Amino acid sequence: VASKLPPSHFQKSPWTWVCRERKCTKLDSTQVPPTETGHPLNVCKLNCGEYGSLLPKPTIKTEIGAGFVPFYPNNVKFEKLEGPSPRTKRLLNASVDIFKSYMLQSVSRYAEDGEDPFPENSTEYDRLSKNIVKVSIAIAHPFDKLTLNTDEGYLLSVQQQEDGATVIVTIQANTYFGARHALETLSQLIAYDDSKNCLQIVDRALIQDKPIFRYRGILLDTSRNFIPVPKLRRLIDGMSYSKLNMFHWHITDTHSFPLYSKSVPQLTKYGAYSPKQIYTIEDIAGLIDYATIRGVKIVAEFDAPAHVGNGWQFGPSAGKGELAVCINQEPWTEYCVEPPCGQLNPVNEEMYKILSEVYKDMLDVFDNDVFHMGGDEVNVKCWNSSSTITQYLTNHGKDLSQESFVELWGQFQIRALKLLKARSKDANMTAIMWTSDLTTKEHIKQYLDKKDYIIQIWSEGRDPIIPYLINEGYRVIFSNYDAWYFDCGYGGWVGGGPNNWCSPYKGWQQVYGNSPIDIYANATSQADANQAMKQGLILGGEVAMWTEQADGSSIESKIWPRAAALGERLWSNPTTDWSAAEIRMVANRQRLVDRGLDADQLQPEWCRQNEGLCHA
Amino acid sequence: VASKLPPSHFQKSPWTWVCRERKCTKLDSTQVPPTETGHPLNVCKLNCGEYGSLLPKPTIKTEIGAGFVPFYPNNVKFEKLEGPSPRTKRLLNASVDIFKSYMLQSVSRYAEDGEDPFPENSTEYDRLSKNIVKVSIAIAHPFDKLTLNTDEGYLLSVQQQEDGATVIVTIQANTYFGARHALETLSQLIAYDDSKNCLQIVDRALIQDKPIFRYRGILLDTSRNFIPVPKLRRLIDGMSYSKLNMFHWHITDTHSFPLYSKSVPQLTKYGAYSPKQIYTIEDIAGLIDYATIRGVKIVAEFDAPAHVGNGWQFGPSAGKGELAVCINQEPWTEYCVEPPCGQLNPVNEEMYKILSEVYKDMLDVFDNDVFHMGGDEVNVKCWNSSSTITQYLTNHGKDLSQESFVELWGQFQIRALKLLKARSKDANMTAIMWTSDLTTKEHIKQYLDKKDYIIQIWSEGRDPIIPYLINEGYRVIFSNYDAWYFDCGYGGWVGGGPNNWCSPYKGWQQVYGNSPIDIYANATSQADANQAMKQGLILGGEVAMWTEQADGSSIESKIWPRAAALGERLWSNPTTDWSAAEIRMVANRQRLVDRGLDADQLQPEWCRQNEGLCHA
Repeated sequence: VASKLPPSHFQKSPWTWVCRERKCTKLDSTQVPPTETGHPLNVCKLNCGEYGSLLPKPTIKTEIGAGFVPFYPNNVKFEKLEGPSPRTKRLLNASVDIFKSYMLQSVSRYAEDGEDPFPENSTEYDRLSKNIVKVSIAIAHPFDKLTLNTDEGYLLSVQQQEDGATVIVTIQANTYFGARHALETLSQLIAYDDSKNCLQIVDRALIQDKPIFRYRGILLDTSRNFIPVPKLRRLIDGMSYSKLNMFHWHITDTHSFPLYSKSVPQLTKYGAYSPKQIYTIEDIAGLIDYATIRGVKIVAEFDAPAHVGNGWQFGPSAGKGELAVCINQEPWTEYCVEPPCGQLNPVNEEMYKILSEVYKDMLDVFDNDVFHMGGDEVNVKCWNSSSTITQYLTNHGKDLSQESFVELWGQFQIRALKLLKARSKDANMTAIMWTSDLTTKEHIKQYLDKKDYIIQIWSEGRDPIIPYLINEGYRVIFSNYDAWYFDCGYGGWVGGGPNNWCSPYKGWQQVYGNSPIDIYANATSQADANQAMKQGLILGGEVAMWTEQADGSSIESKIWPRAAALGERLWSNPTTDWSAAEIRMVANRQRLVDRGLDADQLQPEWCRQNEGLCHA
Repeated sequence: VASKLPPSHFQKSPWTWVCRERKCTKLDSTQVPPTETGHPLNVCKLNCGEYGSLLPKPTIKTEIGAGFVPFYPNNVKFEKLEGPSPRTKRLLNASVDIFKSYMLQSVSRYAEDGEDPFPENSTEYDRLSKNIVKVSIAIAHPFDKLTLNTDEGYLLSVQQQEDGATVIVTIQANTYFGARHALETLSQLIAYDDSKNCLQIVDRALIQDKPIFRYRGILLDTSRNFIPVPKLRRLIDGMSYSKLNMFHWHITDTHSFPLYSKSVPQLTKYGAYSPKQIYTIEDIAGLIDYATIRGVKIVAEFDAPAHVGNGWQFGPSAGKGELAVCINQEPWTEYCVEPPCGQLNPVNEEMYKILSEVYKDMLDVFDNDVFHMGGDEVNVKCWNSSSTITQYLTNHGKDLSQESFVELWGQFQIRALKLLKARSKDANMTAIMWTSDLTTKEHIKQYLDKKDYIIQIWSEGRDPIIPYLINEGYRVIFSNYDAWYFDCGYGGWVGGGPNNWCSPYKGWQQVYGNSPIDIYANATSQADANQAMKQGLILGGEVAMWTEQADGSSIESKIWPRAAALGERLWSNPTTDWSAAEIRMVANRQRLVDRGLDADQLQPEWCRQNEGLCHA
């Protein structure tokens, strides 16, 4: 909220901006040559440079006119909203309401000061209030939920009419999701003009657009630290602004179990950090609806058999034996990669019953077509420390070698997939698994069929597992930690540090430059990479916001605006580097803040106001 | 705001905590041995371990009883508030109101859910509502503003009476500031008990406390990016929670000039990022009052002759010649350390007139006893690129060598100090300057008399300038960047990075371990260090939140909770390392969040609930 400025202190800014050589150049408004026109910065940015303020940049065609049409927010009229089903229409109306709120948000600073943003007693007001923006939206197919096969493309045209006062906007898309993306782009062709106290839309635009990668995600871990539901909604908001579409909800882990299971309420009773730090069915269903309107699919993860612990202690007292072993066991350095330890007990039949119940409760609310099963960082010593497990192996004629435990793990996984599929209403359900000892060339084909599993890669970009998996025909999602882990760079949290395991911090330029296609092509060839894309093996990627050292107080500035760089990397698959996107990244950061996100700052504001002058 | 939990999902937590070997140990509440008593975590933490939840830990005496007395927030009665002047009483009342808000804040989570925190129809309520906490405060000296000589010590005693229902709290201090600190400590001996829905205070405490270092600060830069006034208030709030007392306001720089000067309004007209991004006299005066109540002094900095640029362009058109040179000049790499460039013109008489006016306007509102004059990073090439300056030197028989420009700089500084002192109502005003080429052994004694200047050290901890300055009898403030610069660790902002200049990020353990006394003792001897402390040469230190890559959306999680580590380092001068403070740092982080600060998270919440188990 801006401080209310005493009238005596208000001085009209002497500055204006003209577009020169694709950069908005700051000039004293008394010094603008007669051949040029100055505009407020945000207005200049709408059409200066090939892509104006658009992020991600469209992929097929981008034409933006050089002029502007001023208008007031109440003069955006949605004339024709054609959706071939009631559900499509309802969603479209919801997106239209969101769009209208963008229009009002950008004039909010005046509203906060209590000044009437639209003084209705001026000739200027009368003139501008005649300008109307008329929007028509046509969607070809009735609503179907977002999947990895959804067509998210759209056609957007903006055209000032000859009368000068009318701007016709038309949107065409095959699906609701394409139309929603078109509205997002439209909002990026509009800016607040503080010199005229109105909005400005570019006078012309023709945008043809569709994403290169289908999977464009953010992982958020809500177990190391609980993230309140309102913050999850804000995450989804932010994703929609960057056309990101997959919210990978890493909802449970060893540290806490916040997922309320109707069938197994002991899990949150013993596993939640506190009785109020849980996610109810209603919470989850509400978030899924919220996400769908905004073009986001929620991909649930139940990480197993490792990354399980707190919440599962109730087995013995319930007569079910140990459901998980080495829960919080010390010394943790022996039994897991970070405290606390814990892994499911793969030889306890009761465990599988409960696992099946958890799958049931999750699939009752989460999407059934894609489900993340986790599968990372199983620690052999942990299972080896349990006499029931070692006894089981011995009884089955196995030694206690690494291989025996990997086999045990593999069998667990085969069984878990069966249980999961038995609960799924989607016969073609696909599971996702992390790269791990189970996904090595020695093991993967024995346990993880490529028809059933997508593999999420978290190793370094140079790891040979990446070309191996793709060469073998596995569909993959990239999350290589050396560019896309957002928790990297802070202090140490186990011991004195000085810095955490995947340091240093990954700046937006690194996030932007991490190209899945290039990673694979560098290990094989460009031709191989093109083929892999054709075959749909490189689904896309995801940045990971692990929360050992983050929670609701700080995730927003850690995720944004860096995740917007991922947004362009995966939607547009740019062939230029970060420097060609810098001005738009900075403009986009301002837009995120204007829309209420606590996005971190990338540069001094001076750099945004003096485009191109903060160079190396 | 917590989600409202449907009644069907609420499950009372089975967990409780008992204090064992100075750690709160998590137990199933059905499994607590008869000889022990379980408590909610925040209550256990009040008196488990030598310092309970206190941060910074007191320096002279800390005794905390093992029991608790439950009470309701409306039953804290401030019986006797003795202050020997009306102003003292007014401030004390303000601090008492703040204390009462702490009490209510800790029960806020229930209030947010709309549940009545204090159901008045239970026997438990009747019983607990008989408990009263009676507080008396006695201040010896009438209010005088906070200086480097203020006595901030206090005596705090808490004693449950024999009737069991009354707790007598007495606070004695020489100054208002000591009493305020005592109230802060008292608030750290109280916690919300969610099992009884009331507050708990320790049954007994005797605290004798005073800070080791007088200068315990945070620098905030409001020029690289503007920071709205409400965020500055929150900064001051956070400082008060950690007994930090110096807010060093780096208010202007080359990038923008947000400081409204009544005498020279052109500075903000041309220099503010926008007409609303300025600090008015009213803003500043309001912040000074706000800070005083909270035990914080605001130290203003007008950085010169470098770090000046935007805002000063109006000279030529006003017939005053160039007031500053190389403003926004390219290529910046030649003329300054980061874009944009700019330095005051030391040979322009008009500049000195305006400088004097700025000093006047600043000293009309800011404190007059201490003023930071900046004085860092003068770039010789910048002055050398100005023909008026080179002409001046030549006319005065000087060559264009480095030394000539240093001499010019030194003469500027001598003159600037005269102008500043002429405007100051405090004849004994002290100036602060950064370490720079002017503070080297070759130059400092010629230009900066140790009677006039405190030197703020920003070089590395190993830099020999540190022992040199102290050996020569200069008073110093430590801000060595290798431990206390909070902007370090992020991506690059000029070019592609990968990381910014002072990376890596400084974790709280590094912040905590950076001991000014040890730095100096390691370069000289412990005896020398003790002597320097006796002579009052090591005033204290400051963490620096430079804002090239931060603004209101992110400064809070960058500053907190790390600055609380500085709080203990400088108040308590601990002889133990970060590991002995970890549990209290984590408890304190939760307190900051409970009080509404967006403090970053240090560890998984599991670690806070399982004290000592997240170890290396």
